[in-house]
Amino acid sequence: MNLPRTGIGVDVHAFAADGSTGLALAGVQFPDERALEGHSDGDVAAHAAADALFSAAGLGDLGQQFGTDDPQWAGAAGVVLLGEAARRVRAAGFEIGNVAVQVIGNRPKLGPVRDRAQQALSTAAGAPVTLSATTTDGLGFTGRGEGLAAIATALVVPRD
Amino acid sequence: MNLPRTGIGVDVHAFAADGSTGLALAGVQFPDERALEGHSDGDVAAHAAADALFSAAGLGDLGQQFGTDDPQWAGAAGVVLLGEAARRVRAAGFEIGNVAVQVIGNRPKLGPVRDRAQQALSTAAGAPVTLSATTTDGLGFTGRGEGLAAIATALVVPRD
Amino acid sequence: MNLPRTGIGVDVHAFAADGSTGLALAGVQFPDERALEGHSDGDVAAHAAADALFSAAGLGDLGQQFGTDDPQWAGAAGVVLLGEAARRVRAAGFEIGNVAVQVIGNRPKLGPVRDRAQQALSTAAGAPVTLSATTTDGLGFTGRGEGLAAIATALVVPRD
Repeated sequence: MNLPRTGIGVDVHAFAADGSTGLALAGVQFPDERALEGHSDGDVAAHAAADALFSAAGLGDLGQQFGTDDPQWAGAAGVVLLGEAARRVRAAGFEIGNVAVQVIGNRPKLGPVRDRAQQALSTAAGAPVTLSATTTDGLGFTGRGEGLAAIATALVVPRD
Repeated sequence: MNLPRTGIGVDVHAFAADGSTGLALAGVQFPDERALEGHSDGDVAAHAAADALFSAAGLGDLGQQFGTDDPQWAGAAGVVLLGEAARRVRAAGFEIGNVAVQVIGNRPKLGPVRDRAQQALSTAAGAPVTLSATTTDGLGFTGRGEGLAAIATALVVPRD
Repeated sequence: MNLPRTGIGVDVHAFAADGSTGLALAGVQFPDERALEGHSDGDVAAHAAADALFSAAGLGDLGQQFGTDDPQWAGAAGVVLLGEAARRVRAAGFEIGNVAVQVIGNRPKLGPVRDRAQQALSTAAGAPVTLSATTTDGLGFTGRGEGLAAIATALVVPRD
């Protein structure tokens, strides 16, 4: 087995200033939660996972790969971007070991949808993606409810 | 050897509003440092380490595993939670490779207690746990001294 | 192959209060960008990478290894510190697998210099170092343009 490579990805989106609802997070829809701003659907968990994969494989990041000006990906669902990221990482010569994502913010509570979210993210990536969550005890922008953050790490293995 | 899996964990606690002292951090007691709020002892380093293990193994997070309403773990020491987290990760079929934790905040200085802290955390986890520290140059909630943060990564290996 | 070990490193520097220019970031010079404060050149990407290596190897952190009072390293370039960190990690009995660094901040844009930066960081570390970047959607101290952050993960392998 070749030595695996590790990668890291952080993603942050602000809640929409107009107070609109309809949140996409970790591949799950929350129609009654506050919406996030974003070029795509603002799914910080899926975006962090994709960025961790690009980071591990040395392929840059979401901005480089998908381009904020590229109409093909404008409004794309986070899980679609994650699936395409996984495809590009494999095409660049890597197998994907796993991705682990932690969402940082006050809400929504992810425990009740964890299994469904992990299934959606893992299906998109074609590899195990785990999901966890934490709060920041009222501190910082996540504690003040200004936005959501996610942090992810990924392991990939170069093919022979 | 099976391919290892990586995990990530961030934990944040605010300093107690009443200005009380008695800080538990990385398994070490600092009786003269400001206390943190927390369901347990508020040991952000031990909590981040436990969350990184759960993240790598796909077992959710501290909130799901220990429950903020479960009286059994109310007030539990961080190293006790870390030890129980390691036990559950092994029971779920994983060997623990290592955990690395970084504490982010102004104080206390961890260099003088690093060896002792690493020993306490490693004994709890039954695997090497490393400890490091950094500040944020006066920026953000850690820079303003509102609380402490810790970030951890873990490597686990599925057993055959 | 021995089981690899993972490490984590976060670094933050504030922009210089005097508004001076001359930024070192990821081993690249940006003469027209705002300068960062710092004991060394304030290269958050190189510092986070070095800290992730120390974290994985259990060698403490930049503060312990280089000392903010040690004149030998005062003003040292980040890539010089990264190179020395890699040397010390190898001297402690580890091979370096890879390091992945993500810069978090509004600017400068790193896409145009990514190849050059990755080359500079990888040459310093003697192992693949990948570079990515993200913003925080206007939130937090990076979103307000008060400073830059970087987060890195590293994989090392104990030699027999």
